[in-house]
Amino acid sequence: MRGSHSSVFDSELYSSLFTQPEMKLIWSDENLIRCWLEFEVTVARVQAELNIIPVQAAEEIAAICQSFDVDWPRLAKETQSVGMAIKPLVDQITDAGTPLVKRYLHWGCTTQDLLDTALAMRIKQTLILLRRQLIELGESLKTMALEHKTTVMVARTNSVDASATTWGLHVSSYLSELTRHIHRLDNLYPMAITGLFGGAVGNLASVGHDGISTRDNLMKSLGLSSPVGMMNASQDNVVQVVQLFALVHGTLCRIANDVETMGRPSLAEVREGEGGGGSSTMPHKTNPRASNMIQTLSRMGWMYASGATNLLDQQDVRAASMRVLNWTLLPESALSLSTSLDRACRLITHLVVDKQKMRDNFNASKYFIMSESVSMRLADKIGRDQGYHIMKALLKDADGTQDLQQLVLNNAQIRKTLTEEEIMTACDPLSYLGCNDALIDETLAFFDATDKSMRA
Amino acid sequence: MRGSHSSVFDSELYSSLFTQPEMKLIWSDENLIRCWLEFEVTVARVQAELNIIPVQAAEEIAAICQSFDVDWPRLAKETQSVGMAIKPLVDQITDAGTPLVKRYLHWGCTTQDLLDTALAMRIKQTLILLRRQLIELGESLKTMALEHKTTVMVARTNSVDASATTWGLHVSSYLSELTRHIHRLDNLYPMAITGLFGGAVGNLASVGHDGISTRDNLMKSLGLSSPVGMMNASQDNVVQVVQLFALVHGTLCRIANDVETMGRPSLAEVREGEGGGGSSTMPHKTNPRASNMIQTLSRMGWMYASGATNLLDQQDVRAASMRVLNWTLLPESALSLSTSLDRACRLITHLVVDKQKMRDNFNASKYFIMSESVSMRLADKIGRDQGYHIMKALLKDADGTQDLQQLVLNNAQIRKTLTEEEIMTACDPLSYLGCNDALIDETLAFFDATDKSMRA
Amino acid sequence: MRGSHSSVFDSELYSSLFTQPEMKLIWSDENLIRCWLEFEVTVARVQAELNIIPVQAAEEIAAICQSFDVDWPRLAKETQSVGMAIKPLVDQITDAGTPLVKRYLHWGCTTQDLLDTALAMRIKQTLILLRRQLIELGESLKTMALEHKTTVMVARTNSVDASATTWGLHVSSYLSELTRHIHRLDNLYPMAITGLFGGAVGNLASVGHDGISTRDNLMKSLGLSSPVGMMNASQDNVVQVVQLFALVHGTLCRIANDVETMGRPSLAEVREGEGGGGSSTMPHKTNPRASNMIQTLSRMGWMYASGATNLLDQQDVRAASMRVLNWTLLPESALSLSTSLDRACRLITHLVVDKQKMRDNFNASKYFIMSESVSMRLADKIGRDQGYHIMKALLKDADGTQDLQQLVLNNAQIRKTLTEEEIMTACDPLSYLGCNDALIDETLAFFDATDKSMRA
Amino acid sequence: MRGSHSSVFDSELYSSLFTQPEMKLIWSDENLIRCWLEFEVTVARVQAELNIIPVQAAEEIAAICQSFDVDWPRLAKETQSVGMAIKPLVDQITDAGTPLVKRYLHWGCTTQDLLDTALAMRIKQTLILLRRQLIELGESLKTMALEHKTTVMVARTNSVDASATTWGLHVSSYLSELTRHIHRLDNLYPMAITGLFGGAVGNLASVGHDGISTRDNLMKSLGLSSPVGMMNASQDNVVQVVQLFALVHGTLCRIANDVETMGRPSLAEVREGEGGGGSSTMPHKTNPRASNMIQTLSRMGWMYASGATNLLDQQDVRAASMRVLNWTLLPESALSLSTSLDRACRLITHLVVDKQKMRDNFNASKYFIMSESVSMRLADKIGRDQGYHIMKALLKDADGTQDLQQLVLNNAQIRKTLTEEEIMTACDPLSYLGCNDALIDETLAFFDATDKSMRA
Repeated sequence: MRGSHSSVFDSELYSSLFTQPEMKLIWSDENLIRCWLEFEVTVARVQAELNIIPVQAAEEIAAICQSFDVDWPRLAKETQSVGMAIKPLVDQITDAGTPLVKRYLHWGCTTQDLLDTALAMRIKQTLILLRRQLIELGESLKTMALEHKTTVMVARTNSVDASATTWGLHVSSYLSELTRHIHRLDNLYPMAITGLFGGAVGNLASVGHDGISTRDNLMKSLGLSSPVGMMNASQDNVVQVVQLFALVHGTLCRIANDVETMGRPSLAEVREGEGGGGSSTMPHKTNPRASNMIQTLSRMGWMYASGATNLLDQQDVRAASMRVLNWTLLPESALSLSTSLDRACRLITHLVVDKQKMRDNFNASKYFIMSESVSMRLADKIGRDQGYHIMKALLKDADGTQDLQQLVLNNAQIRKTLTEEEIMTACDPLSYLGCNDALIDETLAFFDATDKSMRA
Repeated sequence: MRGSHSSVFDSELYSSLFTQPEMKLIWSDENLIRCWLEFEVTVARVQAELNIIPVQAAEEIAAICQSFDVDWPRLAKETQSVGMAIKPLVDQITDAGTPLVKRYLHWGCTTQDLLDTALAMRIKQTLILLRRQLIELGESLKTMALEHKTTVMVARTNSVDASATTWGLHVSSYLSELTRHIHRLDNLYPMAITGLFGGAVGNLASVGHDGISTRDNLMKSLGLSSPVGMMNASQDNVVQVVQLFALVHGTLCRIANDVETMGRPSLAEVREGEGGGGSSTMPHKTNPRASNMIQTLSRMGWMYASGATNLLDQQDVRAASMRVLNWTLLPESALSLSTSLDRACRLITHLVVDKQKMRDNFNASKYFIMSESVSMRLADKIGRDQGYHIMKALLKDADGTQDLQQLVLNNAQIRKTLTEEEIMTACDPLSYLGCNDALIDETLAFFDATDKSMRA
Repeated sequence: MRGSHSSVFDSELYSSLFTQPEMKLIWSDENLIRCWLEFEVTVARVQAELNIIPVQAAEEIAAICQSFDVDWPRLAKETQSVGMAIKPLVDQITDAGTPLVKRYLHWGCTTQDLLDTALAMRIKQTLILLRRQLIELGESLKTMALEHKTTVMVARTNSVDASATTWGLHVSSYLSELTRHIHRLDNLYPMAITGLFGGAVGNLASVGHDGISTRDNLMKSLGLSSPVGMMNASQDNVVQVVQLFALVHGTLCRIANDVETMGRPSLAEVREGEGGGGSSTMPHKTNPRASNMIQTLSRMGWMYASGATNLLDQQDVRAASMRVLNWTLLPESALSLSTSLDRACRLITHLVVDKQKMRDNFNASKYFIMSESVSMRLADKIGRDQGYHIMKALLKDADGTQDLQQLVLNNAQIRKTLTEEEIMTACDPLSYLGCNDALIDETLAFFDATDKSMRA
Repeated sequence: MRGSHSSVFDSELYSSLFTQPEMKLIWSDENLIRCWLEFEVTVARVQAELNIIPVQAAEEIAAICQSFDVDWPRLAKETQSVGMAIKPLVDQITDAGTPLVKRYLHWGCTTQDLLDTALAMRIKQTLILLRRQLIELGESLKTMALEHKTTVMVARTNSVDASATTWGLHVSSYLSELTRHIHRLDNLYPMAITGLFGGAVGNLASVGHDGISTRDNLMKSLGLSSPVGMMNASQDNVVQVVQLFALVHGTLCRIANDVETMGRPSLAEVREGEGGGGSSTMPHKTNPRASNMIQTLSRMGWMYASGATNLLDQQDVRAASMRVLNWTLLPESALSLSTSLDRACRLITHLVVDKQKMRDNFNASKYFIMSESVSMRLADKIGRDQGYHIMKALLKDADGTQDLQQLVLNNAQIRKTLTEEEIMTACDPLSYLGCNDALIDETLAFFDATDKSMRA
């Protein structure tokens, strides 16, 4: 029915703003069922190889699963009644299956094995996609950092003009975070793609002595990591993934915050270039939609991370109550992050950077932000403490009509210490960028040293 | 496409477990658009009444909006580009409209007016539905409390058997919370259904001197409260709704926790009676699916409440970034609560209470939990401090082979103070229920004094 | 020992930034013990009045409690061992007490009764203090709103210049929220100050038939509300308080966000006037410390609210695990809010508002933000849709060298519709403030109608 | 003043329940100042080595800092005014210093450099202590897992008896999580101990060309990692630490949940052995205080993690508002985790495990939990599907008067397939423990392969 959805992820109106298409496929019902069927096919094949079930049974299970036409309404109805979808799905296939399928499908498996392994399969697909997106955004940031290595702008701390910096250095600071996120992803990847095969209570009792081999062969076939020991109640690997997503949102949110702030008409140093964002009533106005959406998505991601710790509140061999949370937390957190990365990539690629305005804003500050620079020149000669206090006194009396240069040049006390040339140099932002280039270079090198392709 | 959804609220597999049908309609895309169209129709009518626009224009606007056939794909596409759906919708209607529609549709309105007012309209629908559900659950709890007014059971604190109580008193304690939630809902209702009509920056400039009248007549026609002053950046009314939902989840979670714990095979005092919950591998097992789902939904509700405070992080006349959060927080939090209330209602209605098992568990405790009762009898005669210490010493030496009665009867020191009859009475749980009946009665009276119907 | 503390609330370095002095006293160990002693004295007096214990016992209990010199090291040691402080405190008094004190102190009470009632007593003190602070901040905001009723400034939405407004209207929007918070506080006050007196398992068994009278007289004497029914597992009243604090933080955070943004050198419309905030290295720089601290404190308050819902995860008659959370959540959340209110009050009182700069920033925008105003003038004559599109086209071609007035005056299409005078009026912000005065007035009236004194 | 504290971490009553002594020292004011002084001494020495400042200056700075007697009241007062403690501390030392100290103390440094580097120093101390605690708890778990490798107990899933398992396998599942946490700690350690040295805006302008060398030598001397690029706005390394703490809390909470549940009188399989936990009114009762405190502390840890993501909401070169959050988040989260680990260690070490009761509870279940075992024996012969359905039908008709053995032996359909011996074996839990030993062994090996000592 048209317009019946209620979640922003599936809404006909809103889903395009909240979902990246590939990620949506990964977390679709269809892919979920595909993963479950792949599990059943694979476990049967592995069990046949270990002579636990007949080879013929494994073949017939593969045959029916690979072409199975799910009866969706029946599946939905039985899922509602049972509370989990695995038994209803297994029943459906069993009903339609050959005698061997009836006998050997889902052999020694339990609902949780399928739920958790299919989760790991989709987490793997998710991490591969996200890593690609991280690399892509990283490349854009690298390009921008290089292009603006000497683009001088006002450096601001605590919202106040502080000193001089470059847009390139600032952009490289995003890249530094991003690179760390890629390393974090690589660090947690082997744990995050850990499947589960333990039977009803995790000890593989229903599989017997070939339990460990079945488990390990199954995971290897599915491209997943084998669990170590009994992990039925353990959700730490899953929670860690959602926590990582929260960290990545942090970097995207920083980018969005900066673009929004620097895009305010009073600064106008950058401008979103993607198009869109018109007001329904004010003809002159363009809203920073990309930045705003990224900020929204970051709060969603942080919220999911805060909810995810509940998954850890387990007891006994497992507690369904908390585990079911991952049915909503994982899709929504993966979609939020992927969408935000996608948007951030477009934002950076299309960003209009106004170098002249950056310099104009610098000039408009009347060079007061070079006060530290002058202060340090004085410090070289008369000590940090005294240099700071002379400048502090000078600035205290300033009424804003004069530039810093003029004030300093006219100050007898300073002129005793510094020459006109020294003063003019101290007031030139390009002379006070410190290790700007080296810092950018080491950041780019850090990113470049990162493996650009994922070993799946 | 079959199986393309990814949110549990819209998933073909899972949505029935996460959505109450009426609530799903309230938060559907379709109802959202219906609310927006109702806004446009109503504002036009109100403006016509105030001679701001021609009566004929209002009629033509009503005509087109009431039968408007939304071009969903176009709407979705333009929404993606603009970032908000209002302008695309207004454009669609304008394109199809008569000259008067073109001239006067959306007169003096701004996107936010429609977004926030349609939110208030759906919050109103939501609160009315939830209140009905709260009353319904309250009635079930009342019935159960009355039925089990004298059903003795072990009272447990900090997971340890503590003393005697009744199931009726315990159930009444849920009702006490629920009644407070109804009062809270009634308290926040007028604020929660506050619409917005302020124009682009909240001062009604585009409407002019009739601004306040237009606003107030519009809100009255829509059945909403008028805002007080300029409220464009204010999201407190919305956040408070999500916070209330979190409180209600608390009561439902308590019920679920108790049913789960008391339903453990070692206690078996209650049992979910709804059916469902079978294991895919263990034939003997029935899982407490209702309790578990309610626990899951409570964590979702608490998570949304934790995310909702971000809505308050506003600046200037308004900040879209944070406001957009309510597109996802409100539907999901309303659905979670409504679904949980629905499930809790069925849980209570079908709950199988085993009075005999409650008494058996009491007996199995060998009456040690009556120690306070004996202690207080002693205290009456020899003081609280000494009574407590005599019992503490007695219990310290107990090896678990004897009942409390036997131990106490055999204790020479106690027998100097208490007669056999006094001791036997002290060990009878029915003699030590305190103000059980009065407490139940005052709780039911508290609930009964609550207005059962909502003034919409 | 100097410098041994680790919490910002007790740190010798930092506590002054995180604590309001009166609130710190309310949540001190000393006041906690004072509340417990007051409970013991009062319950004894009430029980004596009901002939449950001898009058002489009550008098001796009062005598010892009112002058009791706590042995802190012993109390701390025993609390660590027992896990709760009540039994250790009762033991200490009992040891030092007369025979009647030994017999009747803590009669029929349980640890939870004291913990929860003392919590309610301190919540009451907290709400009274906070309400006074809210009123005080409200008065400052009112004064500022009145003073700047016609102070024109750029209205910004989504960080972009949007149209014209006044600083007075903006300030009044804070007051509107604040007034709602006062109403919310008054609404929850009776529930929030609900004490507990239920005995070990909540049914007053240890007090017997006079249980309800004892409870009600006790609560009345302590100035608290009586619970309705059995409330041992119910924490909704407490959580609601922390949730309210989160809402109030929202308003303070908005104020801080605006002061920080409008205080950026590129706008310089307001400036913190409290002093402090100097940089350790940049002589010219003053940081918006008050705004920043208020923003920090708001995140703390929101975090506590997110943690508070855990209190609701109760089971059985009560679960200590979650209840203990309120030992840290309540003090920290009360301190954070009170400190932030205090800081906000000083921020508003000392705020330097630069009316001229507000107007300059308006002028610097070249009047483009009056585009809606012109658009609406056109709409009056040729319809909303066409008016919007003419302006949109005009602005699209603008290169930024001309003011809006010039552009409009030079546009032949517009000149056919509007006279020069109409155009000039449309571009004057004072002509396009809509219902500015009425909106401010209704907000001040809303605040003025609020009871300024708390009925304790 | 006695009793003036308000935080549980510093409260005279409560701090022993919420603080591990070594961790308290790490996060004390005193250690904070010690770290700052160490920074000043070290940066001076490094700068002297690079000929940036005179060697004599570095020596005099070292001399005064190593013996500096902080004027606490003055420091507190000036910190309140400035909003940060660095400038006040530097001023104090400068005032008392020699001319060379006045000239060169704090050379090229900025407040943030000290704040962030001292944070990294204390995070390092924290991680070293926590790792030691993790190893210690791991050793206890290992011992217990080995001791109970064949201690049969009821395996429970979703709170319902499910099948057979061993206490040893269950305990090993905690160890598996714990070992992963140690790996996670080792993975994030190098990033977590990253200091900061960037000057006012991060580009090392005030240090000039030797900036990078100064930075790297400083970090090396302090035993910290050097930052890569400009990291002033980056808080990802810090947030990740708090996130890790949340994961560890998950494992501790699981242990506590299980001890609490299995310690309920109806199960009585384990019992806290630490002592304490007496009730103030019920002489027979001992509360599971350790478990409850661990559960409380876990919620605190999860709350801090949810608040920590706010640190990421940065802008410009840095935003103080969000950074200041770490003044409270880091101490409180480190203390909570360390305290909980300490408590968990004592809990496990003193835990009283009642093997007989575990077996009794198994027997009391009348062997119904062996239904899967019988079902699988049937499946071996007649297929999984049919085996499941025969057992399901059998159990459906059971009235609870007979054991599973009896029911199965009396079932004609089953007897056609299984012999009496096969049935009796299928009902013996020891025959249905699957890969119990192998799973325990691989977990212990996983832990044993972990480096037991920290490379500091």
